Amino acid sequence: MTHTNTNTDQAELLVRAVLHNWNLQNQRLDSLLGKLSDEDLARETAPGRNTGNWLLGHLTAVSDGMLPLLGLREKLYPGLQHIFIDNSDKSGLEFPSTADLRVFRKDVNLALTEYFNGMSVQNWTEPHQAVTEEDFLKEPHRNRAGMLINRTAHLSYHLGQLIYLIK
Amino acid sequence: MTHTNTNTDQAELLVRAVLHNWNLQNQRLDSLLGKLSDEDLARETAPGRNTGNWLLGHLTAVSDGMLPLLGLREKLYPGLQHIFIDNSDKSGLEFPSTADLRVFRKDVNLALTEYFNGMSVQNWTEPHQAVTEEDFLKEPHRNRAGMLINRTAHLSYHLGQLIYLIK
Repeated sequence: MTHTNTNTDQAELLVRAVLHNWNLQNQRLDSLLGKLSDEDLARETAPGRNTGNWLLGHLTAVSDGMLPLLGLREKLYPGLQHIFIDNSDKSGLEFPSTADLRVFRKDVNLALTEYFNGMSVQNWTEPHQAVTEEDFLKEPHRNRAGMLINRTAHLSYHLGQLIYLIK
Repeated sequence: MTHTNTNTDQAELLVRAVLHNWNLQNQRLDSLLGKLSDEDLARETAPGRNTGNWLLGHLTAVSDGMLPLLGLREKLYPGLQHIFIDNSDKSGLEFPSTADLRVFRKDVNLALTEYFNGMSVQNWTEPHQAVTEEDFLKEPHRNRAGMLINRTAHLSYHLGQLIYLIK
């Protein structure tokens, strides 16, 4: 099978693969969240481990953090960082309601999708905001697409835990 | 910050990001496996869920399956498919020893790394063996890089479960 993609095509095909996999994992999480009641999400994913609520807040906070890291806009819900990234499930901090957490996730994903649809291949290959020009020369994988693949893997990691809430 | 990457550079940067994230998740799994004893791996990741051994065999079988799907070579351990993909943890089938499962994983990863080091950007953007030319035109994300991102997410998914074996 011979393909004579131009170089532009190659980069475009790669960006599509990155976006497809991000969307796929998010669809799986959305599907799982549709099956889990608020009571299910209040439970621990395994004895002594993170609850569904904490993981839902955590994944939303990490996704929200991509907005500034990709240079798109400030976070939609900056308050999530303290509860769901800087502190653990068992911190004793009060969480937003599960209903609110579900809304926050939708809002963040809608915003990301809107921005992603407007990003060019060139945009995706640029360094993200946490990388200096100097570091980028040494670590060119630290581009925006690389960050999204990293976040896709992160989402899958916790999806593998959230699935344990299904009895 | 302005970048004037050529198109070739763009595709190269994207492939590097894909490979970096695959390697990163594998390093995390290797590090975890180094901490888990054979007795740990014999346990269930959560009550009634997959054991460490089954997940180790499953991940190795799926990685091994990439060799033919990427058009590189036949599988190293075709026998793993029956136990660890076509059947579940509770099948009653006899598993290889944990020591052997650890070796199989190393062998498969070494083979993949060797082939990956020799693959060009063009190779990565070609369809994998499970896609017809016709489907590829409609679903261009089904290229080899897309498969590797998918397998990276799959590995992370089960890594999130294996981590529960740490007490």
